[in-house]
Amino acid sequence: MSTERYGKKIETLVTIDLEKPAWVQEGLHNRWHPDIPAYKTMKQNTPYKIECYDWTGGQIGNNDSADDIKYCDLSKIHYLSGPFDIEGAEPGDCLVVEIQDVQPLERQPWGYCGIFSKENGGGFLDRHYPKAAKAIFDFEGIHCSSRHIPGVRFAGLVHPGIMGTAPSPEVLAEWNKREKELVDANPDADFVMANLPEPKNCYPGAVETEELAQKIACTGCRTIPGRPENGGNCDIKNLSRGSKTYLPVHVKGAKFSVGDLHFSQGDGEISFCGAIEMSGCITVKCSVIKQGMFKFNMKSPMYLPGPVDAHYGPGRYLTFEGFSVDEAGKQLCLDTTVAYRQTCLRVIEYLRRYGYNDYQIYLLLSTAPIQGHIAGIVDVPNSCTTIGLPMDIFDFDISPEAEVTSKDMGTCAFATDDLAEGFPLTDELPNYLLEIITSKK
Amino acid sequence: MSTERYGKKIETLVTIDLEKPAWVQEGLHNRWHPDIPAYKTMKQNTPYKIECYDWTGGQIGNNDSADDIKYCDLSKIHYLSGPFDIEGAEPGDCLVVEIQDVQPLERQPWGYCGIFSKENGGGFLDRHYPKAAKAIFDFEGIHCSSRHIPGVRFAGLVHPGIMGTAPSPEVLAEWNKREKELVDANPDADFVMANLPEPKNCYPGAVETEELAQKIACTGCRTIPGRPENGGNCDIKNLSRGSKTYLPVHVKGAKFSVGDLHFSQGDGEISFCGAIEMSGCITVKCSVIKQGMFKFNMKSPMYLPGPVDAHYGPGRYLTFEGFSVDEAGKQLCLDTTVAYRQTCLRVIEYLRRYGYNDYQIYLLLSTAPIQGHIAGIVDVPNSCTTIGLPMDIFDFDISPEAEVTSKDMGTCAFATDDLAEGFPLTDELPNYLLEIITSKK
Amino acid sequence: MSTERYGKKIETLVTIDLEKPAWVQEGLHNRWHPDIPAYKTMKQNTPYKIECYDWTGGQIGNNDSADDIKYCDLSKIHYLSGPFDIEGAEPGDCLVVEIQDVQPLERQPWGYCGIFSKENGGGFLDRHYPKAAKAIFDFEGIHCSSRHIPGVRFAGLVHPGIMGTAPSPEVLAEWNKREKELVDANPDADFVMANLPEPKNCYPGAVETEELAQKIACTGCRTIPGRPENGGNCDIKNLSRGSKTYLPVHVKGAKFSVGDLHFSQGDGEISFCGAIEMSGCITVKCSVIKQGMFKFNMKSPMYLPGPVDAHYGPGRYLTFEGFSVDEAGKQLCLDTTVAYRQTCLRVIEYLRRYGYNDYQIYLLLSTAPIQGHIAGIVDVPNSCTTIGLPMDIFDFDISPEAEVTSKDMGTCAFATDDLAEGFPLTDELPNYLLEIITSKK
Amino acid sequence: MSTERYGKKIETLVTIDLEKPAWVQEGLHNRWHPDIPAYKTMKQNTPYKIECYDWTGGQIGNNDSADDIKYCDLSKIHYLSGPFDIEGAEPGDCLVVEIQDVQPLERQPWGYCGIFSKENGGGFLDRHYPKAAKAIFDFEGIHCSSRHIPGVRFAGLVHPGIMGTAPSPEVLAEWNKREKELVDANPDADFVMANLPEPKNCYPGAVETEELAQKIACTGCRTIPGRPENGGNCDIKNLSRGSKTYLPVHVKGAKFSVGDLHFSQGDGEISFCGAIEMSGCITVKCSVIKQGMFKFNMKSPMYLPGPVDAHYGPGRYLTFEGFSVDEAGKQLCLDTTVAYRQTCLRVIEYLRRYGYNDYQIYLLLSTAPIQGHIAGIVDVPNSCTTIGLPMDIFDFDISPEAEVTSKDMGTCAFATDDLAEGFPLTDELPNYLLEIITSKK
Repeated sequence: MSTERYGKKIETLVTIDLEKPAWVQEGLHNRWHPDIPAYKTMKQNTPYKIECYDWTGGQIGNNDSADDIKYCDLSKIHYLSGPFDIEGAEPGDCLVVEIQDVQPLERQPWGYCGIFSKENGGGFLDRHYPKAAKAIFDFEGIHCSSRHIPGVRFAGLVHPGIMGTAPSPEVLAEWNKREKELVDANPDADFVMANLPEPKNCYPGAVETEELAQKIACTGCRTIPGRPENGGNCDIKNLSRGSKTYLPVHVKGAKFSVGDLHFSQGDGEISFCGAIEMSGCITVKCSVIKQGMFKFNMKSPMYLPGPVDAHYGPGRYLTFEGFSVDEAGKQLCLDTTVAYRQTCLRVIEYLRRYGYNDYQIYLLLSTAPIQGHIAGIVDVPNSCTTIGLPMDIFDFDISPEAEVTSKDMGTCAFATDDLAEGFPLTDELPNYLLEIITSKK
Repeated sequence: MSTERYGKKIETLVTIDLEKPAWVQEGLHNRWHPDIPAYKTMKQNTPYKIECYDWTGGQIGNNDSADDIKYCDLSKIHYLSGPFDIEGAEPGDCLVVEIQDVQPLERQPWGYCGIFSKENGGGFLDRHYPKAAKAIFDFEGIHCSSRHIPGVRFAGLVHPGIMGTAPSPEVLAEWNKREKELVDANPDADFVMANLPEPKNCYPGAVETEELAQKIACTGCRTIPGRPENGGNCDIKNLSRGSKTYLPVHVKGAKFSVGDLHFSQGDGEISFCGAIEMSGCITVKCSVIKQGMFKFNMKSPMYLPGPVDAHYGPGRYLTFEGFSVDEAGKQLCLDTTVAYRQTCLRVIEYLRRYGYNDYQIYLLLSTAPIQGHIAGIVDVPNSCTTIGLPMDIFDFDISPEAEVTSKDMGTCAFATDDLAEGFPLTDELPNYLLEIITSKK
Repeated sequence: MSTERYGKKIETLVTIDLEKPAWVQEGLHNRWHPDIPAYKTMKQNTPYKIECYDWTGGQIGNNDSADDIKYCDLSKIHYLSGPFDIEGAEPGDCLVVEIQDVQPLERQPWGYCGIFSKENGGGFLDRHYPKAAKAIFDFEGIHCSSRHIPGVRFAGLVHPGIMGTAPSPEVLAEWNKREKELVDANPDADFVMANLPEPKNCYPGAVETEELAQKIACTGCRTIPGRPENGGNCDIKNLSRGSKTYLPVHVKGAKFSVGDLHFSQGDGEISFCGAIEMSGCITVKCSVIKQGMFKFNMKSPMYLPGPVDAHYGPGRYLTFEGFSVDEAGKQLCLDTTVAYRQTCLRVIEYLRRYGYNDYQIYLLLSTAPIQGHIAGIVDVPNSCTTIGLPMDIFDFDISPEAEVTSKDMGTCAFATDDLAEGFPLTDELPNYLLEIITSKK
Repeated sequence: MSTERYGKKIETLVTIDLEKPAWVQEGLHNRWHPDIPAYKTMKQNTPYKIECYDWTGGQIGNNDSADDIKYCDLSKIHYLSGPFDIEGAEPGDCLVVEIQDVQPLERQPWGYCGIFSKENGGGFLDRHYPKAAKAIFDFEGIHCSSRHIPGVRFAGLVHPGIMGTAPSPEVLAEWNKREKELVDANPDADFVMANLPEPKNCYPGAVETEELAQKIACTGCRTIPGRPENGGNCDIKNLSRGSKTYLPVHVKGAKFSVGDLHFSQGDGEISFCGAIEMSGCITVKCSVIKQGMFKFNMKSPMYLPGPVDAHYGPGRYLTFEGFSVDEAGKQLCLDTTVAYRQTCLRVIEYLRRYGYNDYQIYLLLSTAPIQGHIAGIVDVPNSCTTIGLPMDIFDFDISPEAEVTSKDMGTCAFATDDLAEGFPLTDELPNYLLEIITSKK
């Protein structure tokens, strides 16, 4: 008979309660700041489980309306689990975070992808698709599918959108300085170029004094962008099971935080709330390479992906090209962002013929494991980017040579108000959008 | 005994003579223009072989000096083979080009990668690395290695940098208009933003009249950039053996051209002459999808890669992250081009510790099959891009955990003048460059 | 706020209690017989979770002795979960079992691999390695490692060793007939050639009458072998997450059973208890293709693997060849089993130089994702088989060119009695074994 | 201008003349014997090109009859190129053969696969398919297709069927002894169990004396089987471009030989002339690891495949299972050869529904890159083997769920005599074959 039946249990550092919103739970915080106290301490080379709330802290429901997306409170996001001190980590070291597993919560086997309205968050294609929309994805083991985007099913490359270490005071000051300079230099920008410190709904974790809470609220950096110095919201789809991420350490203990779990995401996370967002549990094991920042000349994170993912064979990616000529035909010089937007639009235009509406495809591009590559970046004036769309995620043949049968593909979820106004087909839309939306008749 | 011993031979449409420069040979041209006459006609679904000169038409030699790069005449480039009419192709159709094989010429089993000086061509990192440099790669079957970058060896994903169809007069006019507008709008640019039509060294192919030659010289578009309407110089590393490219057809017969063969290239082709450039032979088989541009809502090319390439496993790519904060620490808003430049620099900084100089690594990043991905493009203000570096191309272990042994890695080729001036270590360089170059001591 | 926070829960059909042995729990059985009553019914296209006991029903412990292996009661094995009726399934149909997930139990994050002694079960190499041995593997997310085989770590391709449908009375009779004929024809065999029906420790599930229990005990087929007609104990390592298995249906409802979960296994499962055996939970979704056996001319199962596994790149498999010349130098004619045994021995001989003892390597070959191929099977008299050993599962470089450093690799677990007798180094062993075992000094 | 335009040329050691049969050309031989003189010498680490005749030395033609297969002279085969001495190689060393490239001859861009009649050579399924048949494959770059098996196209994993070193006199004696013992022990075998030395049509290479020629003729080993001591005719499909094979060295210089090139082959090479046989050119680079046989405990070859091949994703292999129960329903004990034959038959039975005749499928299984695995080899009495059939080589969807449309798939080539007798539908065939052949009506 066995002397030890169960083996050693992995300790869970944070457990979330889905019955309560994120902003009343311990072990969470939503700013980057050196003074946010470590919630717990990890030993090196020891696995821990950490539950994470979905990025909106529970604002989005499993239903067929995008009302919750449209009116989502974007000041209440990114409730990261942590921070965690790692024993022995000191400034100048490199923190190695091995992701041993990432899973949805068994008690909540679904996720969502949202298109935020141009007025509330927006997204990469918001000039084309300014309205809120949503797709719910149900998880079936390693796979997911969505009643809002029929005909598609794929294995998740589950990963955290955010992993990062705390900035030192110097790094924090640098962030605030350079991001403010950007905002200040563009007073007439028609969109938010950077989110500066914002006291409203700052959730600083278990700070001991109100004074410190105020300090963090006023100077703590927002979690929206990834940043070279600490990683953060990089939204790299390949930081999945088995990966090892190498993060710079700026403060004693490293103060590692993690959150914003994704069941799957395409390169670019283009719809902003662009992955399949979910609550879940991540298992990590950390270690420290002493003086690693110097050994590696390290100015930003690096990583080794895990050996496991869905592989389709190179010949199974139908690949679209986009160039730095914008929607109006204007030539830009090596603007890779514009090139990637064109590439996205090319995929949408192609997939329309199967009966999807543009919002459905936009949601699909955000969530499916599309491969977004920089193909050419030196041949003035055109950058060329590509998107490889895995054909095997469709249950019909999308290759150009295959016969096309028109199908009823239903629709994704829209907001009640917008539908009342006749959306997605409305005269109020500019012509170029009408053309896009009506083109599939 | 066999009734038919040899099978049917594949016809060769263009044969190049390496003893002569490209600009005296037939079946070549170096402009995009609807009036360049088709050199020959292809039947559909029939394989043909086409030899192509290296992109400089033979200006670069297999030696240990970058003088030929430094003084390369950039008006004498891109001698494309063709144009070829494809039977049955008409405007609005989609031309399908299946690449059956691409090989170096057996009579010239080597290629080169060049870094052009900032004054003559430049490249993606020319502010950091303004001098000319070169590496010669020797081919051994599917592999290549370079005496100028020891310790590295990889299989080529051989491909043509350029494949395209001829523009219609309308498309040509649109190109010239929008590129001129870009140049006109940026009179003070410190680099060439676009190359407008240039009569000097225009090689229009077998035009019948001098008048037509003049017309092409004055209005024919340069071949430097890829363009959405016809493909062209897209430098997509995956258009290799077995791939199928879908190109819009704008003129009767399509007038397909091909050239600028590469033995291997990394995503971005960052050093501009950035692949392993070579002369070679491509075998293609073309067919036409009638009305394909309309069926596919096609505004730019798409493709299916071939099923065959070197695969290393996802866990074998050491991956670097870069963000849209520039070298001076300035924050930019979703500038993916800047982000990719940062990513390139991060790889260079990392690989220095093995004894390579920066120019060697720059050449390596241009030529090895690095995977350049757009990771996040919506989290203002930072774009995040990544470069996956296949660790298995090195004959030593470059993983962060492995021990580092300092080696003598020799050097790539530089220009005689520059070396005479003390390059690559010279006081005349700005401090930040000095720091970069001397950091490996 | 969300209208539906949790989504629909997946029903669990069988829950096992690790505190109790398998043979007192409901929803389990350990014979194939048409009269074993269905435990529950599944709807088509509906996911269900099913917990499964490890193949020994809890006889093996997480400790450092192989006593439990040596004295394991092999009549108490393969407590399969089920049988389950699938709505609508009828004889002649094809049952499609999609595995949506397979996981170890969170409450027992470890597994084991055992070498059974030649007297009790044996294994593929039992003439060479006749003693009991064991390795415990700890799970860390997708990875596992063993304190008994240091230096190795790999991602699991988790799968059930056994999935099958119930035989019809005719199929059952055919099995019993042909297996008895084999035994009868080989009265002098020095090993068990087939396990015929055995009343001892038969566990027939929830039969209503003792008479039926007796019938099943006397005629129910043992679960040791896989069989073409219903699948069963095929031990195919690729029937993992995302796979779809197509099984013949012989009785109304199909009566599907599943069990014998493995965290990982090499091709061949050579040590018999040869995978990383574990208790766990499998999520399946079943559907029925009407008349599928006829449509597919189906005489044995077929499957589509899932798209997700660990991939290492073809060049990362160090591959060994073995031929049908046996250990004594005797030439056999196209005996592929002997060829595969030689291949296994070749790997063992190679890996000795790193400090492992042979039993450790035998355990490793059983559990790691080695690729066992039939290379040539027509060139009389030699079959040629190969084993591809993924080099990336070692934390040191095992390629032939790498330097070899001798390490202390500890040992796997052995049985107390055997160790007392001086095993693994003892004079009682035949010379050829001594030579093998002592060769590493 | 270039100082060196062409680079260094690779020396060609053997050039074959397709106008003449193999048995009159120099640099070839068709026996293994230590006294066959080295034809030329290779320097270490230097690439060489070697042309090789197809395995029949030019007996098979590109036509639509299998007459040449039926009457092929099997004493005139395997004209290997070589032997080559490698500088510095001595007995006990390990010869490393890196295959840099393998290509068909440009002057003969086609190959063939043959099914030999049961009376002349036979094959793995000759009891089922006793007649001669043939398929011609045309090469189009990396791809091949056959007019005799429409609907299929795949990339070649080009490789030599035979690579080996010369045996020492002791090894040679051992081979002759053990193979003769096999033949002697089976006087009543109904097929050739081993091919013993045969003076007829022995082609010993450039021996200096008739006496030596006689010696080689009488004692030289046939090249039919691969053998553990020297490799030889292993027919391993993965020894393709970029692979490195490690061969034991038994004589001074190693005396390396190579031949029997294949454009593609499935695991098992089941039809005996089972790959796509072709003449071609192989580029190799050899080196020597001193005392390698001892360092590696080396009793048979090992290899590292190249990093490049066609990859389809695991989920794209429709996989069939076969067990050691033979066609007559007889149970065998762990007979893996029988299991693999069953697996082959299962694929044939499945693919019939698309309109292919069995001989076409047999030819397809021999040539396409099917993956033949040993799945389970310990669960008495059944071995389980699997064949993974890549679905992407078909231009229609063969997945079980797809709709089946009956097509006219033409036929492969048969022999004139057999067709005259009404083959492939004839009363003379036993019932079980008739059933098989007529089942598709």
